[in-house]
Parts: sequence; structure tokens; C-alpha cells
Amino acid sequence: MSNLLGIDIGGTSVKIGLLDLSGKIKSKLVFPTQPLKSISHFFQVLSQHIQQLLERTDTDLASLIGIGIGAPGHSSTDGEIIGAVNLPFPKKIPIVAFLRDLTGLPVFLLKDAKVAALGEKYWGAARGMDNFVILMLGTGLGYAAFSEGRIINGQQKLAGELGHSIIQFNGRSCNCGKKGCLETYLSATGLKRTTFELLGQNLLDSPLRNYPFAELNTKIIAQFAQQKDAIAQQAFRQTAQYLGMLMANLGEQLGPEGFIISGGLAEAGPILMDPAEKIMNEYLQPIYRGKIQILRASLPAAEVGILGAGALVMNSIQLQA
Amino acid sequence: MSNLLGIDIGGTSVKIGLLDLSGKIKSKLVFPTQPLKSISHFFQVLSQHIQQLLERTDTDLASLIGIGIGAPGHSSTDGEIIGAVNLPFPKKIPIVAFLRDLTGLPVFLLKDAKVAALGEKYWGAARGMDNFVILMLGTGLGYAAFSEGRIINGQQKLAGELGHSIIQFNGRSCNCGKKGCLETYLSATGLKRTTFELLGQNLLDSPLRNYPFAELNTKIIAQFAQQKDAIAQQAFRQTAQYLGMLMANLGEQLGPEGFIISGGLAEAGPILMDPAEKIMNEYLQPIYRGKIQILRASLPAAEVGILGAGALVMNSIQLQA
Repeated sequence: MSNLLGIDIGGTSVKIGLLDLSGKIKSKLVFPTQPLKSISHFFQVLSQHIQQLLERTDTDLASLIGIGIGAPGHSSTDGEIIGAVNLPFPKKIPIVAFLRDLTGLPVFLLKDAKVAALGEKYWGAARGMDNFVILMLGTGLGYAAFSEGRIINGQQKLAGELGHSIIQFNGRSCNCGKKGCLETYLSATGLKRTTFELLGQNLLDSPLRNYPFAELNTKIIAQFAQQKDAIAQQAFRQTAQYLGMLMANLGEQLGPEGFIISGGLAEAGPILMDPAEKIMNEYLQPIYRGKIQILRASLPAAEVGILGAGALVMNSIQLQA
Repeated sequence: MSNLLGIDIGGTSVKIGLLDLSGKIKSKLVFPTQPLKSISHFFQVLSQHIQQLLERTDTDLASLIGIGIGAPGHSSTDGEIIGAVNLPFPKKIPIVAFLRDLTGLPVFLLKDAKVAALGEKYWGAARGMDNFVILMLGTGLGYAAFSEGRIINGQQKLAGELGHSIIQFNGRSCNCGKKGCLETYLSATGLKRTTFELLGQNLLDSPLRNYPFAELNTKIIAQFAQQKDAIAQQAFRQTAQYLGMLMANLGEQLGPEGFIISGGLAEAGPILMDPAEKIMNEYLQPIYRGKIQILRASLPAAEVGILGAGALVMNSIQLQA
């Protein structure tokens, strides 16, 4: 009883890792998600890879404490993945029942952002924090929050969506069909959209005018901002304004000790984080000021899903005990 | 061991009630807050009233399970009231230590909105709900949230401020010194400010033009809205938009089974609540729709503080057990 199996299901790939109880990944395997044609096909490929991973590491099923799974969409109380629009299968995926029947082990499923938060709490930047919020600033905006050592799950584990909070009446169109969603402003995609709006709104010379929308990304905009390009700097200022305001609002609503920031936009570093922290502290009421840390996530992006899924097993068994 | 003492400290008055374990108020006393000149004066008057209440009801201290206190500002982990700007005393009020020394009983302190939420959970509209949010729409905007049966407290019990979340860059001035705080739009005061903005923005005939700012209130605006006054109707539509959007955002972030709405603005009833519910469900992602109830608070405004303080004792002792 000294191993954990962590499964990270994403729209691009599925990652499986065998870890020890200190969060060390002993071995991992990856297979692509999009070629999978049905739930039964997915389950078949998944079980083959689990078997392969165990054989390769000469690991017995009996040495596993349990299996943890992080997945997009929502996790039903019955252990189904639901509403994961990025996966190529139908709506409900009864993955917990499948893996429990296959292995006889305890199996736990949770939304990917919550799993990432658990990974950071057990083995990353949130170690020692009982109250924190993770903000995953990638293509969209992922979020999970802890209060007094517990994930804020709400009814049917439905808590945990922040990207589609409306922050602007009749604002930017979102791919969810609504307008003014937070992630259309605050995400890697949001930064790019802000940059393009600014390129349209004024006539300043900028090397950014040489990039088509499809080719622009956070890294390029950050590079020009560091070279003092006015458009790039303004795009980061506006994005930092949204981030700082969000952290002030969530700081007062949820009382976290810290924010853990991850994702492609976070890689811009101080050019985003320094003004965001300043704005957060300006907006916070005095009693909160100086009490909320802002930290970059410390687990590698390629491993946080597996590590978090392992942490999910530890956390779930601890809660049951 | 069959009684609870509930204390509700407000900027206008302090209410003390003796309740049984079913939430029935056996007797209560009220004294005004503003004449109190210092913490020691407050403690002296408070202990006199507690004694008077016990004598009047022929109650022995030994019959009390504990004392609960709801107070404005924040409640420190050391049992002090801090940052309560509406009270006429200095910053830190060590009320838990004082009452514990005075009575030898367990004493519990929590922010007023959280105490109201506990009252509604034990004996009011939130009975049976483990996940809910209370929104108190009065002069300002009070808030507390539960997830899986527990109050969201965050670090040092600092969670629980929503009124000063910024929803509009450079928006309306707030008495906290910031601009664009949610409660400047969504509260009884917010409705009045919206009405005055509308009276300035257009030239429609309206009986509301006969009211000075100081005399206008929710009741009057609601009355004219029911009589189809266009300004009053528009003021409620805009306010409902803010409320509906807020409930959609918090619905996705926190996954509540229901929102419990109280305060003077809630008394406007369907003219506010019906469009707000419609807007909430429009903004919610499909998976949340139809899963979130909106209910009026059911405890009387004059008693919710005392009842909630009693519920705080029950809840705290249960958590300790």
C-alpha cells in the first residue's frame, strides 16, 4: 500500500502516472484523446495503458491505495464525467464505476481545476495553506477554492466555475454563447483579444501590427512589452487590472491566505503579476491588506494533473477516515 | 442544559434573547448602541441586561448551553470584534473573553451575516440546505455562504465580504472610499441611486420627481413601479439585472442549492425577484439551470440576529463534538 495511480484526462491527451506517497512520479504514459471514438473505446485504451504502466514498473495492483482522476467538465456524485465539451464522447462517462470494477480499488473523480489545487496543496505552492484559490489562466480561466482545508464543492460538486462569470453587460462574445464572461478578458486568449482591440482603437506604431490573430500569443506580447512597446504594455496593464480586481473581490469573499496562479498567461511573470498585486491591495479593504500572498503554481504543467489526481486519493481517503 | 443566549450587536441597538433548543425566543431585551461611550461601559450595560433577562425568566446560568454573538465588522479567531465601523467604540472588542469570564459558559462570536445564515439554516428558509448563500440587501449588501454544511470562513474567519467587490471600474462612489462597489448598485441604497440617475438621464414624467433623495426608499419606488411608472420600473429592471447576474456568478462559483434573500430591498418582492430569477437562469450555464432555488429569508428581521446567535452556539458545539 505505497503507491497511487493518477489519471489526468484532457481534451488533447490522457496522462497516467504511478506515484509514491510523497508525490514522486515513478513512471507515466500518455495517449491522445481525440482519436478515441466512444466511451467503450476510451475505456479499452485506458485499461490497456494502466496494465502497461503496472507491468513496466513491476507494480502489483495490491500495492495501490487508490486511483484518482482529474477531468474537464463536472464530476457527478455518482462518479461520472459530465458536460466535458472538449472530450470526443457523449455527455456522461461513468469512469469511476468502470475503474472500480476493473481494479477493485477505491476510485475518486474530481474536476481538473480542483485536482490541480489538491496537487499544489499536497506537493506544490499551496503547501501549508488551508485557505487558498487557484487561478489557471490558459486558453480559458480555471478556478478552485479551499476554505479551512476543504475544497469548496457546493451541491453535487457543482462549485468551481469562474471563467463564465459575467463581468461586463453585453461585453465580449464568449464561446459559451454568453457575452462579457470573465475569461474573455482574463486568460491568455483575453490578453490577445485586448491587444487586438488596442491595435484597432489607436494608431500607435507597434511590431504587433505584423502578427495575425492566429499567430499571436502571450509570449510574443510579453516580449514586446519588455521592449517597451506601448500597445503590449497597455494590454498587460488592462489584464492586470482584471486580475487584481478579481483577486481583491475573491479575497474579501473567500478569505484566502493566497492565490496560486498557473497557465500560459502566468508565464508572463512580473509584467503581469506585479501590477496585479498592487491593484489587488489597492482594492482590498484595509483589514485584508498584506494578508494575501500571490504565488506562481510550482508543479510542472505536464505533471500537475497526475500529481493532483494522486493527491485526490490521499485527500479523499483522509476525509473518509 | 436546555437554553441558549443569543446576542445581536448592531449599530443601532443590541438585542439579547433567551431561546430554547428549538429556536423559540422565550424573552428578549433591547438597548441602544450609540449612547454607549466605551468598551467597559458597553460591557457593564450588557452584563446588566443579561442578568435582568435571566432574572425575568427565572433562568439559571447552568441551564444555558452557551452564548452566541453576532456582530458587524469581523470576528477575530481570539473572539474579538474588529473593524466594526458602525459601533461607537475603538477597534477591538474582546467580547468573548469578557462573557466567558463573566459566565463560565462557552461563548461564540461570528460576523452578523454569517450568524443570520446560521439562523436561516437552523430555523428558517435554509432548513435542509447544506449549500446556500444569503444575500442581505439593506443599506449595504451582506453576504455569507455555506458549502457542504460548513460556513465558508477562509483564513482568520475573513471570508464573507461581498458588498465591496468592485463590479465597475471607476463606478459609483462608495462610503468605503472605493468606486464601483457592488453595494452601490445592489442594495436599497443602490436602487435609490439608480432611480436618481434615471431621473437625471431622461425627461419622463414621474411622481418620483417630487421626492428628495433623503425621503425616497424602496417601498415608495416599488409602489410607483406597481403603478407602471416607467422610471421606477426601469430602476427595478436594472437592479434585478445586477442581482440576477450576481446569483448566476455565485451559483457557478459556489454551487449553492439556493439563495436566501433578506433586507429592505427584498421586501419589494416579485417586482425584483421574478426578473432577477429569469436573468440568473439566462446567465447560468445549462448544467446549473433549474438547480438553484431563490427564497425570501423567513426569520423576522427583528429576531434573525438573536436566533442566528443561538444557532451559532448549536453549530459550534456540534463542530467541536
